[in-house]
Parts: sequence; structure tokens; C-alpha cells
Amino acid sequence: MAKIILSINAGSSSVKVSVYKAVGEGRPPTQLAEVQVAGLTAPPVKLTYERGSEKIKDKELDGITSQDDAFKYILDHLTQDKGLADLQNRNDIAFTCHRVVHGGSYPTAQVINHDTYHYLEDLSDLAPLHNVRALAIIRACVKELPGSKNIAYFDSSFHNTMPECVRTYPIDQEIAKRNQLRKYGFHGISYAFITRAVAEFLKKPQDNVNIIALHLGSGASACAVLKGKSVDNTMGLTPLAGLPGATRSGSIDPSLVFHYTSDAGKLSQSSTKEMHLSTAEEILNLKSGWKALTGTTDFGKISASDDPQCQLAFDILVDRIVGFVGSYYVKLEGKVDALVFAGGIGEKGDKLRAKVVEKCQCLGFKLDEQKNSKPEDAVVASIGAKGSKHDTLICHTDEQVSFLRSVLAVRTRL
Amino acid sequence: MAKIILSINAGSSSVKVSVYKAVGEGRPPTQLAEVQVAGLTAPPVKLTYERGSEKIKDKELDGITSQDDAFKYILDHLTQDKGLADLQNRNDIAFTCHRVVHGGSYPTAQVINHDTYHYLEDLSDLAPLHNVRALAIIRACVKELPGSKNIAYFDSSFHNTMPECVRTYPIDQEIAKRNQLRKYGFHGISYAFITRAVAEFLKKPQDNVNIIALHLGSGASACAVLKGKSVDNTMGLTPLAGLPGATRSGSIDPSLVFHYTSDAGKLSQSSTKEMHLSTAEEILNLKSGWKALTGTTDFGKISASDDPQCQLAFDILVDRIVGFVGSYYVKLEGKVDALVFAGGIGEKGDKLRAKVVEKCQCLGFKLDEQKNSKPEDAVVASIGAKGSKHDTLICHTDEQVSFLRSVLAVRTRL
Repeated sequence: MAKIILSINAGSSSVKVSVYKAVGEGRPPTQLAEVQVAGLTAPPVKLTYERGSEKIKDKELDGITSQDDAFKYILDHLTQDKGLADLQNRNDIAFTCHRVVHGGSYPTAQVINHDTYHYLEDLSDLAPLHNVRALAIIRACVKELPGSKNIAYFDSSFHNTMPECVRTYPIDQEIAKRNQLRKYGFHGISYAFITRAVAEFLKKPQDNVNIIALHLGSGASACAVLKGKSVDNTMGLTPLAGLPGATRSGSIDPSLVFHYTSDAGKLSQSSTKEMHLSTAEEILNLKSGWKALTGTTDFGKISASDDPQCQLAFDILVDRIVGFVGSYYVKLEGKVDALVFAGGIGEKGDKLRAKVVEKCQCLGFKLDEQKNSKPEDAVVASIGAKGSKHDTLICHTDEQVSFLRSVLAVRTRL
Repeated sequence: MAKIILSINAGSSSVKVSVYKAVGEGRPPTQLAEVQVAGLTAPPVKLTYERGSEKIKDKELDGITSQDDAFKYILDHLTQDKGLADLQNRNDIAFTCHRVVHGGSYPTAQVINHDTYHYLEDLSDLAPLHNVRALAIIRACVKELPGSKNIAYFDSSFHNTMPECVRTYPIDQEIAKRNQLRKYGFHGISYAFITRAVAEFLKKPQDNVNIIALHLGSGASACAVLKGKSVDNTMGLTPLAGLPGATRSGSIDPSLVFHYTSDAGKLSQSSTKEMHLSTAEEILNLKSGWKALTGTTDFGKISASDDPQCQLAFDILVDRIVGFVGSYYVKLEGKVDALVFAGGIGEKGDKLRAKVVEKCQCLGFKLDEQKNSKPEDAVVASIGAKGSKHDTLICHTDEQVSFLRSVLAVRTRL
């Protein structure tokens, strides 16, 4: 019986595939190999491959120009690798798994069929920057791997538990319903991992865990988790709302972009037949954030710099984060097990953590300076001062582990 | 010497003028009369006039079709009223005062001259719904009352003290500077009154007062006041951002409107030669909020109704308010003298106040139920429970008194 699972991630200029082998009910799949074709938009295109001790690094490839090409090349490469005994035939592939940012109202991962595919296709206009590439790869899988099941898992699912008053925008409700305009929230794969990991760390049942979680990476968000479930998230209809990020403005006056450019509503030049992107969305998602303020997307550099624009960018992030911490503290009615830092900036940014927690001291958070500057290397590590009212944690969030759990859950349902 | 002050308020369908007499340095002017011409967009046009015991109510007028007409009619009516001995001649009018919502970077009221007029005209594109009418009346005054000084006072001035990291949007800074794109904040005339009144109530110097103030009317906002100065406000570049209002969406995902209508960036049909309004701004400012959710703009009715849409609207406002209370609590580092409710909904909405404060109990706020349902009839009244960590107040904000103070301040500077 076929038992190979592929996890496929299509970036703007690359295709990355992780190969897993299912080892039996209730046990997590084991990883066999990882392969990436990169440089599609900046040739030469290069292959990277890892299987056990077998490694290929930056091997130049000819004749590959699209993600479709890259995916086909990867399939051939895998099935022709004699060392990969469990995958000598495309039919060995039982599941292909696709991370789709916007899953609309789906509360869990979904098997792709006619209905689910078209639902996601409809959503693509809401999240053109995020969903279009994933759908293209799903189409390629349907064509190249007719024997495998496609499973999509979503960054929005975890937030499906937000109360109606949180997810409703006060706009014309007929149009809102017709166009599916509500708050969805994202980074849910990460928040699901964080919630579970923190529950284990605290030795509490997951449905008894209340946290304020911060996923701070090049995209950044915050989430209020009450009894293990998301009750609010800073992102909105799309990942644009909330905290600013590497190239994203975050929340701004909704009328701002019309005073930024008179072309706001026109299609951006990077739009394609499949992807309809307004100029406004391109500006606010791709041409704003740290990059616009400082010239770099590297928050580590920004934190370390004494350039006034870098300091301003740092202060802006601190200001917006502490605002949401206060907001979510009240939404959890003060019953907070911990403030949790995660994501690249959350895990590495000791200076940012120190500043945020200092500002939130009035809520009962306090850092142990020693632990903050040299946190324990564990999935979850406490950096809170002894005796502080609420703990502060760092969580090394692992979206791959989180998605494998949701794939297992779907397999169990099949 | 001329000593009459006119305060002029141009609504969308009316012109209202309050007549004051200056009585000497350092003392507030006394009100002599009030006159309004209403119904410009829904004839018949009607006059209402009050001077002492002399009253005219809803007298129908012919031949008046514009705000210009209405203003000229008012001037004639006032100078021809023999009972108004201090104003028998247009030259008696020393000052005309204009409330202008968007004052850009002006920290105080300004005398209108060539430079200030053009600065405000440039700003009109930022706040077409708010500034254009006021500028039209200023032009009428310059023409009809060449001997008087025009003074403009602004809803944005009070927030000029917000720190740079609060007022900066993380967008392209060159375009931001060129197009004056930053957070300004509004309702400042009200917040200036509230801050002063609360300082008097608390018997504290104004520069020692820290409050979270909520101005909740058909337009709604919150403000964090640290040492008597605004350090944050929920409104933004324009009054659209932040809390939802009667017809305003408040903060939403900045990309939402492009999925609401494909005409978002086009000029709305209500645009004129002077007023350039995008369809998006019209939808989000005038066709959203309570009205879109419930069909009414009357929050009293919404609070009292058990219709599910009304309850949703109520819950949405509570959710957004408590979020900002938490946010501003942290921004004030917990050093909060009081949470202050003001504006029509803030002053009358005991049910809303009860719900908001209940949710904020974890921060140390608690209501005295008796006081909340029957608050003392004073400018500032405490409704906080005895022994609660932070007090809760109601403030009957009086923007008229606030503006007269700023006019006096300008006169002193002249």
C-alpha cells in the first residue's frame, strides 16, 4: 500500500518538497528526504537535495523556467533516486499536502475535491498574493499524481472559533456575506502548535490554556487564546491587517491608500490572468513595513542599529505589539497563563522582548534578564521573572510538525 | 470697538451661527443669540432663532438654496434685529470662528490668512467630507465680513503631542512626507475639554492627569492622555480609523474595500469640483457602521433592542472599546487616574458603560451600579465603585466652551 506523503511549498521563486513515510496509525510520519528547486525568477535554477547522508547542493539545472517544470523535475528526481526505496513509483505517493494561507471558513484541513477546490479558487480573489501559487501546485498534482489525495491545510482554520462580534466588520451585511468579507485571521498553523506546546509545558489540558501569543516574523501577528481556542487575532480579511511586517503596513487608516496614490483601485502591473491584485494591495503588502522605513527587511539588523529610522521602526513595532497585548489581556479578562513570543523575531529578539515586557509590567509581566538574553534551548522556555504574576515564554514554533498533525487528523477521518 | 464673535457651524444641510460678546480680557464671552437655517437639501428651508426670550421656530424661508445664501440671510437677520443692540452693523463683528475638523500639524487655533487658508485647502483632499464645507464658509466670511478676523480651530490639534512612533505609518516615507500621511487624531476639542474638566474634578494640575477618555457619539474615538497630553488616539489620517460609528466602519483590513467594490478607487458620485471623494471613502464613512448593521443610527434604540443584529452591533462596539481600553492602559503603563465616558452614547449609555467596565475589571475598574444608572448631573461625575483601583467618570463634554477657550487664547496672542 502507498504510504508516502509529500509536503509541497511553492514560493515566489522556488518549489520545496518534503518527503515523509507514514508509519502507522497515531504515530507521526518520519521524514525521508527534502528537495528544493530555487532561482526560478533569478536563474540559474539550482537543485538542493538531502536524503540521510546523501546531499546535493546548488546543482545548476537547465530548461526549467516555471513552477510546473520544477515540480515535474522534483518528481522525476525522487522516483529515480535508488536510495529512496519507498518511492520508486509515483503511485507510492498517497498524499500531497499543500499549505494554503486563506481557507475561508474551513475549520480543519480538507481533502481537495471538485467542491473544495472551487471554494478555494473563489477565495483566491480575497488573498491573491497568498493562495494563487498554492492552487497552481494543486492543479499540477492532480495532473501528475492522479493516484494521490491532495490535502490542503490552512493558516486561517485555527481562528474559526472567534466570536461573531470579533469577526464581523460593521459594513453592509449583504455585501459582506456575498463577498465573504469578515475577519479570518492567519498564522493559525503556528498558533495551533504554540497552544499545544505551551499546554504541555504548563502541564495543563489544552482546553484550559489562556495565552497571548505573538508570532513575529517577516509577517507578524498576535493571537488571544482562551481555553485553547483563538478568540481574536490581529490579522483580518487578509494577512494585511494588524501588526506591521517586513514589507507590510499592518493596520492603517483604511482611507490612507487613496491619498498615497490615485491608482489605488487599479490592477497592479504584477497582476496576471489568475491573480488580480490591486495597486493598493501591492503597495501595502509588498512596499511598506520595515523595508519602506529602513531599507532592510532584516529585523535583527534594525534592532542593532542606531540609525534614527531603524530606531523608529523598532519603536513602532514595540508600540503596536504592546497595544495588542493590552487589548488581548482585557479580552481574556486578565486570566492569562503566559505571554508567548514565537517566530524568528520573537525567538531571537531579546531586545524587543525586553522592551515589550517592560512596557507591560503594569499587567503583571516581568522578565528574568538572564533567561531573556540566554534562553534555554527547548521547544518552550520560560523567561519570566520568578514571582511575576504571569509568565513569559519563548516557543520555537514548528509549522511542519503542526501541519503533519492536521494531515494525520484528516487521514483518520478518511 | 467691535466686540462680537460669531461661531459658525456649516452642516451638510444647515448653517448654524452662535453670537457672542467679548466682555474683557480673561473672561469668557457671553452668548447673545443663536440662529440656524436648516433644510437646505430637503426644502422647505426653515429659520430658527433665539435671543433671550425672543424666539422664532421653523419659519419657512423662500429663495434660499445654498449655504452661501443661508449665511447672507443670517447676517441680514442679525443686523436687522433691533433687540440685538451690539450687532447693528457688520463691522461690529470682530471674529468669526470656524470649526475645521482636519488641522494637519497646527497645534493650536489659527487666524486665517493667505498662508493658513492654503494650508487648510491642501489638507481638504485628505478630509474631503470634513473640511470642504468649513472652507466654503470661511470664503463667504472673507467676502461678506472683510473687517472681521477668521479664526479656525481644529479637532486634530490636541493630538499634536503624540510621539513619532505612534503617528508614523510604516509606509514609504518620501510619499508619506509629500502627501502628509500620518496619524493625526480627532475629537481633540472634546478631549481638551475632558482633560481640563477631569483635572478640576480630581483637583490635580492638568499636566499631572492620566486618563483613558472615550468620546462616543455618532462618531466615536478613544484617547490616551498622559500628563494632560494626548499620546494616542484611535482615529488616524482621517476620522475613519479606530472605533466604528453611526455610518463609519472604523478600522478594518485596509484591503477590504477593494473586495467590497471594484469601483473603490473611482471618484464617488457625490464628488464635486471642490470635493474629491473616492467611492471607498464614501462607503466606509457614510454607508457602514450601525446604520449598515441595524438600519438605524440611533445607538439608544440599538442598546434597548433584542433584535440579533442590534445585539451584534452592541457587542461589536463593546469589543472594540475594551480592546482600546486595554491598549491605552498599557500605553499609560497602568498609571491611570480614570476611565472617562463622554459624548452622547458615553453620557447616556448606562448599559454600554456597565458592559465595558465589567470586561475591564481585570485592570482595576469597577462601577457603582446605582451611580451608573443614575449619575449625578454635573460636568464630571464619578460612577466608580468605592475602593476600585481606578475611578470611572462621566464627563459632559462641551465643545463650545472648549472652542471659546481656544479663541480667547488666540485673541491674547494677537
